[in-house]
Amino acid sequence: MKQSCLSLLAILITTQLCLTTPSLNAAESGSTETHTPRSVILIIGDGFDDQHLTMARNYLAGNAGTLGLDALPVRGAVQIETVSPDGTRLYAADSANTATSLATGAVTNIGRIGTDAQDRDRVTVLELAAQAGYATGLVSTSSVTDATPASFAAHVNIRMCEGPDITNGGELYGQPFSGCPSDATQNGGAGSIAEQLAKAPVDILLGGGAKFFDQSIPGQSQTVIEWAQAQGVRVIRQKDNLANLPASGRVIGLFDKENLEVRWRGTDGRTAENADVSWLNRIDWRLGSSADPEPMECEPNPDYGDTPSLAAMTEAALTGLAARSDKGLFLMVESASIDKQSHKRNPCGSIGEIEQLEEALAAALRFADDHPNTLVIVTADHAQAAQILPEPSLFAAVPVPVYSPGKVARVKTPEGGVMRINYATNNFPKAEEHTGANVPLFGNAVAQGVLKPFMRQRDVHQAMLAYLGLNEEETTP
Amino acid sequence: MKQSCLSLLAILITTQLCLTTPSLNAAESGSTETHTPRSVILIIGDGFDDQHLTMARNYLAGNAGTLGLDALPVRGAVQIETVSPDGTRLYAADSANTATSLATGAVTNIGRIGTDAQDRDRVTVLELAAQAGYATGLVSTSSVTDATPASFAAHVNIRMCEGPDITNGGELYGQPFSGCPSDATQNGGAGSIAEQLAKAPVDILLGGGAKFFDQSIPGQSQTVIEWAQAQGVRVIRQKDNLANLPASGRVIGLFDKENLEVRWRGTDGRTAENADVSWLNRIDWRLGSSADPEPMECEPNPDYGDTPSLAAMTEAALTGLAARSDKGLFLMVESASIDKQSHKRNPCGSIGEIEQLEEALAAALRFADDHPNTLVIVTADHAQAAQILPEPSLFAAVPVPVYSPGKVARVKTPEGGVMRINYATNNFPKAEEHTGANVPLFGNAVAQGVLKPFMRQRDVHQAMLAYLGLNEEETTP
Repeated sequence: MKQSCLSLLAILITTQLCLTTPSLNAAESGSTETHTPRSVILIIGDGFDDQHLTMARNYLAGNAGTLGLDALPVRGAVQIETVSPDGTRLYAADSANTATSLATGAVTNIGRIGTDAQDRDRVTVLELAAQAGYATGLVSTSSVTDATPASFAAHVNIRMCEGPDITNGGELYGQPFSGCPSDATQNGGAGSIAEQLAKAPVDILLGGGAKFFDQSIPGQSQTVIEWAQAQGVRVIRQKDNLANLPASGRVIGLFDKENLEVRWRGTDGRTAENADVSWLNRIDWRLGSSADPEPMECEPNPDYGDTPSLAAMTEAALTGLAARSDKGLFLMVESASIDKQSHKRNPCGSIGEIEQLEEALAAALRFADDHPNTLVIVTADHAQAAQILPEPSLFAAVPVPVYSPGKVARVKTPEGGVMRINYATNNFPKAEEHTGANVPLFGNAVAQGVLKPFMRQRDVHQAMLAYLGLNEEETTP
Repeated sequence: MKQSCLSLLAILITTQLCLTTPSLNAAESGSTETHTPRSVILIIGDGFDDQHLTMARNYLAGNAGTLGLDALPVRGAVQIETVSPDGTRLYAADSANTATSLATGAVTNIGRIGTDAQDRDRVTVLELAAQAGYATGLVSTSSVTDATPASFAAHVNIRMCEGPDITNGGELYGQPFSGCPSDATQNGGAGSIAEQLAKAPVDILLGGGAKFFDQSIPGQSQTVIEWAQAQGVRVIRQKDNLANLPASGRVIGLFDKENLEVRWRGTDGRTAENADVSWLNRIDWRLGSSADPEPMECEPNPDYGDTPSLAAMTEAALTGLAARSDKGLFLMVESASIDKQSHKRNPCGSIGEIEQLEEALAAALRFADDHPNTLVIVTADHAQAAQILPEPSLFAAVPVPVYSPGKVARVKTPEGGVMRINYATNNFPKAEEHTGANVPLFGNAVAQGVLKPFMRQRDVHQAMLAYLGLNEEETTP
C-alpha cells in the first residue's frame, strides 16, 4: 500500500466528521433510553451465483422447496466490476478486487486487497464504522487473511501476502513470487495481511489462518499472534471458546491453520469426473460409446471434526459485538468455500457451505428480530464454474455418444432425483475458473429502500455507509 | 392431447365465470368513460439467464452501464420445475415444459405443449383471457409453432408436431419419429400445432413458421393457411404489412419459413472454437502449448434482410390489440434466439437477440405509459450454456497451457475489452445443453405487489390470472 498525505488527511477529517455529524437516527440526540442502535450484517457467499443457489435449493429444500434466502423480501442483482492495470474493463473477477469494491467502493485490479487500481489505500466500511464507534467484526470459513475478510481491514497490493514469510518475496505454489515489498515490515510498510489484521480495528475476528499469525514478525522475536496478545488481544483456538467470549476488548479466533474444513464431500471423497469415452469416439464423435460417472451422494466430511460452524461463529460475534457498543455494529460474515469447492469440482462441498450460509443468515435474522435497526444483506463476490445440466442430456435420444468435455458429478438428491453438475472452464487440476455473471442480492425488510433491484458492488458499499451514517472522504485525488 | 369431459366442463364453467365475475377494476361497473382496461405483456427471453444478461450488459451498455431491464423497479428470480414421466423431479428443462408452466400453471414433462404430465390439456392464460373478452396476441422471433408461443395456444404431447406432415409420425433430423398420433387430424385429434394455432383464439399471431402453415391439412385440399384465410383470417408475409394491420379480425403474420433470421453474428460467421492444443499437451497437461481462438467482433448478419424486428412486431401487435378490446389485452412476446444462438455457440447472435428483447421492452413500457393498468413482466424459460470466463485465465501466470475443454469465443466489446465466452456442456455439433439455474424476473411499477422476489413459473402464471381477474378451473381431477 501507499498511504498518501491526502488520504491520511482524509481519514483525520473523516474521523472528525464521524464524531460530530448528526446521526441518521434519534440515537445521538437524547438519552440512552431512546437510543436505537443501527447495525449492518453483510453476508457474502464466495462464488455464490444463481447456478450454485439453485443447486443448493434443489438439494437442501427440494426442487419445489424454498430456501431461507428465497423468503427474504428484498432481492436483486449485483454487477461485478474489475479493471486491468491498463484500465481496460475485465469481465470476470476474483475475490480480492470484488471484496475491495464492497469494502471500499473502489473498482480495482484482480488480486488487490483494500487498494485501488493506483495502489492507493482505500478506507473500508469497517474502518469507518470503527472510527464512528460501531463495534466491528469479521467472520469467515476461510483463513481470515484470505481475500474477502482481508479486504475489509487490510491494504496490500497482492492477496497472496497473507503472512510475514512471503511478503518480501519468495516461492509460492512452486513458482517464484515477488511478494508485496512496498508493504513488507522490513521495508517500512504495514506488513502482511496477518500483521495488519493484528492491529486493525476489528473487535472480533473469527476464522482460519493460524499458520500466518504464527509466523514471526520480521526483525522481531515475536510471532504476529504473540504480538497481538501482548497488546491485550484475547486469542482463542477452540470452538468451545466461542461460548464465553469476553464482553470487551479485541478477540481473534483461529480455528484452523488455513481454511476451515468444509462440512460435506461426495461419496468417498469423489469430485466431478470425466466421462469414460471409447477410443473409437476419440476418432469420430459419431462413433463408439461414452459412460457417465456413477452417481454420488453427499456425505459428511470426515475431516470436519471440531470445526465451528459459520452460524456458531456468527452468533458468537453478534452477541459479543452487541455487548461492545450502544451505537450498533458492522459484521461481515463469509461462507468462503462455496467458491473453493467449486474450484475443486466438488458440488457436495459447495452445497454444504451454502447450508452454512443459510444457517448464518438465520442467526442474523434472529439478531435482527431482537435489534430492529439491523440491515441484513446477502450477496456474492463473483460467479463460479458449476452448471446444472440436463440428466439425461437433451440429446440422449440421438444414437451418438453425448457427454461433457469437462468433468461431471451426478449428485443424488434427498427427493430422489439426480442433479448433474458440470465443471468445464479449464483443463487444470482442481482449479476451475470464476465466471462473470451478475450475482444475487438479498436483504431483510430493513433493506427496503436501502438496496435497489440492480446495483454494483460500489453501490452496495455506499448503501451500507448511508445506512450507518458514515461519511467516506475520497482518498484519491 | 386428451380432452377429458371434466376439462371441457371446466372451460364452460370458466367461460361463464369470466363473463359474470365482477372485474377487479371499475371497468365493468360503469360507462365506457370510466373504463380502464387491464393488460398483461409477458416478455420471454428464451434461454435468458444471468450469464446471458451480463454478456448483453457488458456488450450493449458497457461493464459500468445499465440495460433497460436493469432500470425496472421490480426484480426477482424464478425457479424452473420439470418432472420426468415417472414423476421424478428433473433439474434442467426445455422451452416446451417451461412455457407450458407459464401458460397453464402445470409442472410437466420436457417436450410437452399445453399438456400436463398425464397428457391432459391445460387451459392457458391466453385462452382464458380470450374467453373473458381480452384481445390476445403472440409474437416471437421463432416459428410461431415453436415451443414457447405454441404453449400459450396449442395442446400436443410433443413439441416437434409443428405441422401436419410430421404429426402422424415419420422421420425427423434423420431419425424415425413417432409423431403425436393422438393429436393427428386423421385420428380425430385437434391436429398439429399449426392447425391448432389456425383455429386458436389469438387475435394477432406474428413470427416465423410459414413452412408449417403451408402444409396441407390431412384429407383436405387446403393448406393450413388457406383454411385460415377461408375463415377470414388476414395473413401477412411482409414486414411492411405490419404498418397497416386491420383494426379487427384475426391476423397471422409469417415472416420466414422457420425461425426469423437473427440480427448479429461473429466475424465472418465465426462461432466459439476449440483452443489449438499441441500434441505434447495431449500427452501430459503440463507440457506443450495451447493457443486461444483469435478475438472476434459482432457484425450484422447478412441474411437478416427484411426480417421485422421484435420491437416492430410488438408495437404492431400492441396497437392492433388495443383497438380490438376495451377490456384490455394479453400479449406474449418472445425473443427466441437468445437460446438458439447459445445452442450454436454464437455469443454475438445471443447478444443481438437480447438487444431485440430490450427494444421490445421499450415498446412495452411506452404502451404502459399510455395505458396505466398494464403489467409488464420479463422473464426466461430456462438457463443456457454460455459462461463468461476470465480473459486471461486466472491461472495464466502458471507456466502450463491453460484452456477450456469446450469451445470459446473471445468477443471484442465496444468499450475496448475482450469478453471470453465458454460453451462446454457437451461434445455435440451446434447443440449445447440447457442449464438449470433459476432465471431472472423483472416487472414495471404495476408489478409491485403482483410479482414476488422469488416465484416459480406456475406462480407467475397465477399472478397474471389474478391481475386480469381470470378464474382458472382445475382441469385435472
